[in-house]
Amino acid sequence: MDKKISDKVINRLTLYHCILDDYITSEIEFISSKQIANLLRIDDSQVRKDINLLNNSGKCRVGYIVKELKKSIEATLGFAKTKNAFIIGAGNLGMALAKYDNFSNYGLNIIALFDNDRSKIGTTINNKVVLDIKKLPNLLRKSNIDIAILTVPKKYAQATADYLVKSEIKHIWNFTPAVLAVPDDVQVWNENLMGNFLQFSYNI
Amino acid sequence: MDKKISDKVINRLTLYHCILDDYITSEIEFISSKQIANLLRIDDSQVRKDINLLNNSGKCRVGYIVKELKKSIEATLGFAKTKNAFIIGAGNLGMALAKYDNFSNYGLNIIALFDNDRSKIGTTINNKVVLDIKKLPNLLRKSNIDIAILTVPKKYAQATADYLVKSEIKHIWNFTPAVLAVPDDVQVWNENLMGNFLQFSYNI
Repeated sequence: MDKKISDKVINRLTLYHCILDDYITSEIEFISSKQIANLLRIDDSQVRKDINLLNNSGKCRVGYIVKELKKSIEATLGFAKTKNAFIIGAGNLGMALAKYDNFSNYGLNIIALFDNDRSKIGTTINNKVVLDIKKLPNLLRKSNIDIAILTVPKKYAQATADYLVKSEIKHIWNFTPAVLAVPDDVQVWNENLMGNFLQFSYNI
Repeated sequence: MDKKISDKVINRLTLYHCILDDYITSEIEFISSKQIANLLRIDDSQVRKDINLLNNSGKCRVGYIVKELKKSIEATLGFAKTKNAFIIGAGNLGMALAKYDNFSNYGLNIIALFDNDRSKIGTTINNKVVLDIKKLPNLLRKSNIDIAILTVPKKYAQATADYLVKSEIKHIWNFTPAVLAVPDDVQVWNENLMGNFLQFSYNI
């Protein structure tokens, strides 16, 4: 990115991108900031401000050219630079994420899943194989994996994180409700579903 | 809440709560802001500032009393006020959320799941039954449901949202990667996984 873009802006740009995707499916050529703003219930001046951060927004007389704006968001957010990931834990959540085809559109390439359950090892989910967790350290050394997506039950979260750290994983996307203790050179991103829920439901 | 607490603070308080939960399991009585800060890689002055927003933090000479601080977070974030929810879509993600026992600790009570797949209707997941989606409007009228958790495939997301709106749901927690068009009196909370991922992976 040319300019430092804040987390909130990144989040909104991803949502604009989803909307543009739908417009392309519906074969609509142009979109206005007002249309985006209405769908997301935000101010259209906010939408214009966010889009102004992009290098080439596809602005035209009637709004924005959908395809250009979409490409520009992709370039700015670095979708093009693919990151490889393993999913650790082939339970329902791991399987849901393995099936989530949207990830690959955003540069997240899920290579395989890992589990210790013999009944799951060797099966495939969405063309991704479930491997024995014992093979992880060896495979990590051979492959170019940036991220481990942690979807094991809470009670195994810390032990599995310890194992990932020993296997030299440097980035953990943590979907478990556990707060993980890891060395300083390992990054943990907590997908804090409960925090999100409490923000959402605060006014209900 | 007595004071308006920002989304970022709510998010951090939830993480502190997870840590306190682990301390209680380990039968540790006291915790310092430094210990919390180290686990989350944030500044301990930030932790103290957040905790100062609580009514009764359990502060003592050696830090905080774990049980008191936990109770205080629960009182402040309104865990006590239970919200009832239906999960719409009994695929892997819906099943993962139905199995996520942590929700009930935070005041989210999942009553049942809904699907249109005849092979799923009538089965139970974590003691929650999968019901025919056709029964939704009738059941909503009879029960006190605040939230629909939407976990259907993207291509069915808008049509299902339309159906939820017709069934008079007012709050949708949207786990699909679709941006939903809904009337003004319906709130949508987008669980924007791709936005989160892009924030996380920005520096990788």
